[in-house]
Amino acid sequence: MHAEIITIGSELLLGGRPETNSLFLVNELARLGIQIKWKTVVGDEEKDITEVLKRALQRSDLVMTTGGLGSTLDDLTKKVVAKVTRRRLVLKEDLLQDLQDRFQKRRHLPIGLLGKTSPLEKMPKSYERQALLPSQAQVLKNPVGTASGFVLECGGHYLVVLPGVPHEMRRIFADSVRGILQKLVRGSRPFVLQVIRTFGLTEVKVGEATKDLVEPSAGQKLGLVAGSTGVDIYIMTRMGSAAKTGDSIEGLKETLRKRFGEAIYSEEGRDMEEVVGLALKKRGLQLAIAESCTGGLIGHRLTNIPGSSAYLERGVICYSDLSKIEMLQVPAEIIARYGAVSSQVAIALAEGVRKISKTDLGLGVTGIAGPGGDTPTKAVGLVHMALAYSEGTRQESFQFSGDRVGLKLFFSQAGLDLIRRHLLQS
Amino acid sequence: MHAEIITIGSELLLGGRPETNSLFLVNELARLGIQIKWKTVVGDEEKDITEVLKRALQRSDLVMTTGGLGSTLDDLTKKVVAKVTRRRLVLKEDLLQDLQDRFQKRRHLPIGLLGKTSPLEKMPKSYERQALLPSQAQVLKNPVGTASGFVLECGGHYLVVLPGVPHEMRRIFADSVRGILQKLVRGSRPFVLQVIRTFGLTEVKVGEATKDLVEPSAGQKLGLVAGSTGVDIYIMTRMGSAAKTGDSIEGLKETLRKRFGEAIYSEEGRDMEEVVGLALKKRGLQLAIAESCTGGLIGHRLTNIPGSSAYLERGVICYSDLSKIEMLQVPAEIIARYGAVSSQVAIALAEGVRKISKTDLGLGVTGIAGPGGDTPTKAVGLVHMALAYSEGTRQESFQFSGDRVGLKLFFSQAGLDLIRRHLLQS
Repeated sequence: MHAEIITIGSELLLGGRPETNSLFLVNELARLGIQIKWKTVVGDEEKDITEVLKRALQRSDLVMTTGGLGSTLDDLTKKVVAKVTRRRLVLKEDLLQDLQDRFQKRRHLPIGLLGKTSPLEKMPKSYERQALLPSQAQVLKNPVGTASGFVLECGGHYLVVLPGVPHEMRRIFADSVRGILQKLVRGSRPFVLQVIRTFGLTEVKVGEATKDLVEPSAGQKLGLVAGSTGVDIYIMTRMGSAAKTGDSIEGLKETLRKRFGEAIYSEEGRDMEEVVGLALKKRGLQLAIAESCTGGLIGHRLTNIPGSSAYLERGVICYSDLSKIEMLQVPAEIIARYGAVSSQVAIALAEGVRKISKTDLGLGVTGIAGPGGDTPTKAVGLVHMALAYSEGTRQESFQFSGDRVGLKLFFSQAGLDLIRRHLLQS
Repeated sequence: MHAEIITIGSELLLGGRPETNSLFLVNELARLGIQIKWKTVVGDEEKDITEVLKRALQRSDLVMTTGGLGSTLDDLTKKVVAKVTRRRLVLKEDLLQDLQDRFQKRRHLPIGLLGKTSPLEKMPKSYERQALLPSQAQVLKNPVGTASGFVLECGGHYLVVLPGVPHEMRRIFADSVRGILQKLVRGSRPFVLQVIRTFGLTEVKVGEATKDLVEPSAGQKLGLVAGSTGVDIYIMTRMGSAAKTGDSIEGLKETLRKRFGEAIYSEEGRDMEEVVGLALKKRGLQLAIAESCTGGLIGHRLTNIPGSSAYLERGVICYSDLSKIEMLQVPAEIIARYGAVSSQVAIALAEGVRKISKTDLGLGVTGIAGPGGDTPTKAVGLVHMALAYSEGTRQESFQFSGDRVGLKLFFSQAGLDLIRRHLLQS
């Protein structure tokens, strides 16, 4: 089963915001074993949406759209779908009743980001458009908004239409779409995707070390994605018999483990902060962090994981020299002698934050994220980090390259990775 | 001039990573007044790339591709371009010489993320493929990698082909593509895009308050994008005479200012952290922050701006109660009586961090990012924040809704916005 995703909305072609709906769908479909072949972003233009939808329904078994289901006139998705699939738009009485009931009961519908309520007393006329759907469409209820999704079958191709508001789209997917797709693919998962994540290796090195591993004939494909958080290895396995496929995936993983060892930080595509969090939690350890160049990013990443208060005790964003001295007891003469970006200061930060917090572990990170701030002996991209623990302190230094935002992400990843490798060995 | 972007690479259809190249290009092209009509993501499949490239060269004046220019066999872009545009791939001697020179001189080429050097003594044969380009192509030099870009003209349509590694793509764009496109559009900017960013209003409210503003006949279009950082208003103005267009944009902005007042935090599409940073810098003020629920995100955002050390003195990620008491002098009895998530603690955090840092301003943020952690009287999404300054302390509380990552972003935006509005009024 080949699928494609169409995201509809002129705003997606105007600004610099990442579009997250298709990322969510790609991940969810991959879990179901459905492969995405195309992703298209198109504006709110009837002609353009028509073209892409027509073509999609010819070439793909499953077409999913997001966006263009609002109650305003430039929301064209339903109109175009009706035209392309040669159906009429019909008023679904039960949908209309449901909208009116919800409006009555609560005097408002969820209308915005701040959770404020609308002062409207009567349901606006424009909302009635939300109860129009193409004939023969299966309704996908939206309990958190006014735009229902729907599913249509046309000539063996499936079309799933979802609203563009991310949390509404995700809710409808979880409530109804996932189940529908599971039934569609039934036992026949066409492929399994596995993501092995590494840190500390270059893309070329991983490429050289994996190019012998899979042949097209074996039904396995291997892809590499290099980014600020390391090199990820994607393994796509076409499904043969369950046992055989399981064997071949396990065999490949074993080979990767032998070749890359500790550089592999997750075999399940997890983020580094989650891996580190799980390891700390499992061992019942508490962590405190002292961040200079990363400016809070390590703390931010760790606290993105629910339950992180179990292991992250505190952090200090020691941006100024004075804050390093006052809050973390870094001796002023060490900064004067070696500079704030030095292995000595990294060690003092790690030991200082561990001491004041009385935690098991203390992480210290100091570096040059640029632009500027470099010296004849210290280039932009240089980072020193240290991890203090009960028996001593580990210190590591790296020279990365990239722009400020990329370097901060690298530095944070390297800092988290230092914790991870320490826990593996301890 | 209508443009479209094609991003090539199977990895973009496999994982949950945002694809940033097209975001960069959309922004850059908008600045040049070039409107994007389509964005397509396609895997490394010859048939699929061929289809989308053919269609693109029929319907768009300018087609830009990224990706598929590596030295491995699944990098197919050049092959497909040559086929679709009916050109041969020819060896560019000077490109090959340049690659060899660079390899000789440095014994390595930039090969990966960690800035490590390759131990290779001889340029790998596969690199020679990088000197093959379609005939009549104009080379776009890549000083930071081995994959050159190129420009082709075919029947009045322009095709710009760029590598997929983001920093290489951005470098080539800045070095050569921007200049080429400027010449192409010359005086004839077809539209101007302006982005007005607001915080603290719902999308419905902004929608109601703007729906009378522009009519299609006036050559202006207004779009709204709501997200975790507020509601952005996109104004697209078709160019008439320069003076008239300038007037109509200025008139519209003036109306928006009257209607939304201080809720507008940027009229140039800037991020909140940049706006706050500029305001602090201009006034020569120093800031210290105490973050509980945001876990370092406010510090991270502020330090994404180069030169932020001029105004961000330090931060404390006071995740545990003990860290609030020990580092920020929050009285234990206040936490015991009102709870860690309370307006009283927010005030104590702000005043505490200002006091220990001796800064002009101190920001304190405490809230419930969930999931869990709520109580009968305090729901997930509740946040208390306070800003301490020389004459007093401002305190504000909000109830947002969303998931953990979304809420953290909201909270950080609200905290930064509190600083911004304080500076406006002081």
